[in-house]
Amino acid sequence: MTPVTPVCESIDIPAGEGRAVFVDAGQRVKIIDVEGQQVGDVFAFARDDVREYHSASHTRAHVNRLFPAVGEQFVTSLRRPMLTLVEDSSPRRHDMLIAACDPARYAALAAPAHHASCAQNMQDALARLGLSADLVPQPINVFMDIPVGRDGTLTWETATSRPGDSITFQAEIDCVFVVSACPQDLVGINAGAPTPLRLLIANGESA
Amino acid sequence: MTPVTPVCESIDIPAGEGRAVFVDAGQRVKIIDVEGQQVGDVFAFARDDVREYHSASHTRAHVNRLFPAVGEQFVTSLRRPMLTLVEDSSPRRHDMLIAACDPARYAALAAPAHHASCAQNMQDALARLGLSADLVPQPINVFMDIPVGRDGTLTWETATSRPGDSITFQAEIDCVFVVSACPQDLVGINAGAPTPLRLLIANGESA
Repeated sequence: MTPVTPVCESIDIPAGEGRAVFVDAGQRVKIIDVEGQQVGDVFAFARDDVREYHSASHTRAHVNRLFPAVGEQFVTSLRRPMLTLVEDSSPRRHDMLIAACDPARYAALAAPAHHASCAQNMQDALARLGLSADLVPQPINVFMDIPVGRDGTLTWETATSRPGDSITFQAEIDCVFVVSACPQDLVGINAGAPTPLRLLIANGESA
Repeated sequence: MTPVTPVCESIDIPAGEGRAVFVDAGQRVKIIDVEGQQVGDVFAFARDDVREYHSASHTRAHVNRLFPAVGEQFVTSLRRPMLTLVEDSSPRRHDMLIAACDPARYAALAAPAHHASCAQNMQDALARLGLSADLVPQPINVFMDIPVGRDGTLTWETATSRPGDSITFQAEIDCVFVVSACPQDLVGINAGAPTPLRLLIANGESA
């Protein structure tokens, strides 16, 4: 029997790399942490004009939470609903406070020159679709565990997601959806060496 | 007697308006809440290239706090130290989670057309200096009280700053410093109608 709502596309993201994909309004993107304890930096842009992007600071004002719960929305820099968090099989620890790692971050960490970064992965992934962005928006850092203390202190913990855990977003508008399998290997947010992520794009409720 | 470190400039910001000023590295900017309980949206850009700006998500990663304490720094989108919080006579409740109010925000609140906004105030203030920015960065919202619950819930409280309370930033690089006396009159973050702010720019430690 043919599934009613089949998976349209499966994309493997190698450890430390990024991928971008066009997603239609109504489609769902499931991000799978293949081996567990791997952070993904998620960016989303409006397909008709990438100058409109998912904005963490607008989303916080929209949902009145540091991070949306299942069923809640993410909005753009123009406050348009863009994504909905529809499923989450992980321990539900995700970050939406911290900037993407970038060359300046790795320079400060005394990393080797040309260390991969989520910021560069985002730009490279967009470039493969013929797109470019003028800025690197603050990402949604799935599976990244940054607990907030009562005094506002942020702690950098190792991701607690298990092999096969996933989080699923539904697109509310046509998007360019970008995920970087975070190459961070100098701060302990990933468990040891970076590992792959997988994306499943599907129509409706099957992702 | 002449003060050793005189105030160089005093700028009154009328209620609901914004002002931008060039600030040299080492100078201090004191923001005074003249009548009390008034939020100010603060933006800062590198003077030599406004594409580099104060970035809240990079600052949180730098200080490991939701909001820097006195003595801590704010960094740019390229992770350069840009400002230091040097003095704070207020109840020390400031926000660095929420986007600037903008036309889309007021449209959603069913405000009259052309309601003033901090986003537009920022652009207008830059334009008066012959500058423009491609984006509205997430501001530092001085005197804005957004408590974070233990479950991550954000609550919008009325500012608790008293008449004459102030917060002072020292510039670590040459900046364009922008402050909007927030025109928000539909959500209770300001006490009643918006009121003015005042900036004092000074060399060294006198601001």
